[in-house]
Amino acid sequence: MSETISEDELLHQVELLNEDPLIHGILIQLPLPKHINEQRVLKHVKLEKDVDGFHPENVGNLTLKRLDNLLVSCTPQGCIELLDAYNIEISGKNVVVLGRSNIVGIPMSLLLLHRNATVTICHSKTQDLKSHTKNAHIIICACGQAKMLTKEYINENVVIIDVGINSIEDKTRKSGYRLVGDADYEDLKDNVKAITPVPGGVGPMTIAMLLKNTLIACINTT
Amino acid sequence: MSETISEDELLHQVELLNEDPLIHGILIQLPLPKHINEQRVLKHVKLEKDVDGFHPENVGNLTLKRLDNLLVSCTPQGCIELLDAYNIEISGKNVVVLGRSNIVGIPMSLLLLHRNATVTICHSKTQDLKSHTKNAHIIICACGQAKMLTKEYINENVVIIDVGINSIEDKTRKSGYRLVGDADYEDLKDNVKAITPVPGGVGPMTIAMLLKNTLIACINTT
Repeated sequence: MSETISEDELLHQVELLNEDPLIHGILIQLPLPKHINEQRVLKHVKLEKDVDGFHPENVGNLTLKRLDNLLVSCTPQGCIELLDAYNIEISGKNVVVLGRSNIVGIPMSLLLLHRNATVTICHSKTQDLKSHTKNAHIIICACGQAKMLTKEYINENVVIIDVGINSIEDKTRKSGYRLVGDADYEDLKDNVKAITPVPGGVGPMTIAMLLKNTLIACINTT
Repeated sequence: MSETISEDELLHQVELLNEDPLIHGILIQLPLPKHINEQRVLKHVKLEKDVDGFHPENVGNLTLKRLDNLLVSCTPQGCIELLDAYNIEISGKNVVVLGRSNIVGIPMSLLLLHRNATVTICHSKTQDLKSHTKNAHIIICACGQAKMLTKEYINENVVIIDVGINSIEDKTRKSGYRLVGDADYEDLKDNVKAITPVPGGVGPMTIAMLLKNTLIACINTT
């Protein structure tokens, strides 16, 4: 659709997809143009087709005891899958989540609580960040600050999952920039138990979970 | 209504209240009888009349940037009001929330994040609880364990808000029992900066916030 689409017309398009029985999943590609109310559009997606898991009711559902057949937001779900795939224990561990966004930090924290982690949510207003990160068994970086997490913040047994995707200047590249995470991978990689790279770490997991959610949405509605 | 009411009949009654323009707030008195699906009933309350703030969408809304005119669950809101009324700073402080329920622990944590606290959510599976509570500026007790928080868990500058209401045996009472919090008030009161009593601390605040929400619901819908 055109970038100049009106909010009403966009809502109408979402409505058509909501009603179309051949469509099982709807994803609103963010960010939307500034003249459109993002939350209003996200809330307009039919709950059962919200494969991104961004609808506030789907976020709120993460506070319930059972998550069966829920559409869980993709990036946090992908982080849990990564930890499980590498047999990294979550239950009873101290997990520090850097960032408190409604699309990563908060749903991530809720999923970790489901897995019995003790969760600390840090952010730009946290004082003495080190006192939290130094005691973490797992750190989830989702604050959008390029390479902010360095080895002085961590203990060497930590596992780092880096959700950040930041573009920084790089004159050696044709494009003039490259993508880095919130963790300083080069500085950390030999000083931690495990760390995900950016790009290539969490990103592909997010896409896989989006497909999984679409399948769940299809099963739930047919 | 009778305790033997069927789920369908209860949902029908909620429906009637949802549609009645003279009713601005609906509260489902929990717990419901075992044959009724609590979540199904809570989700049936019209969002705009959910003065308890227990509908998952209202919980999920707490992850959004702005809370204007939202129905925020009463007990967590009451705790924030108490802290504000006593000029206890929240921003940048380490707050430990004991308990991860969808009606207190989680919404409490989300409200504290809105106020820029660094929030750690502890629970029954937390290892080395002391390492968290000893470093807290504020502790919110909402775990339903009678008098579990004692002075060996805390530092003497801490502020304790006790949401717990537990019934313990007391043969000196006519009733045979009395109500106590999750914090051991007698043990703590001379060793902390501030602490709320049980009963008489958070309880009356919850009721006040319920009235406030009912007013907001009325204003929002008329």
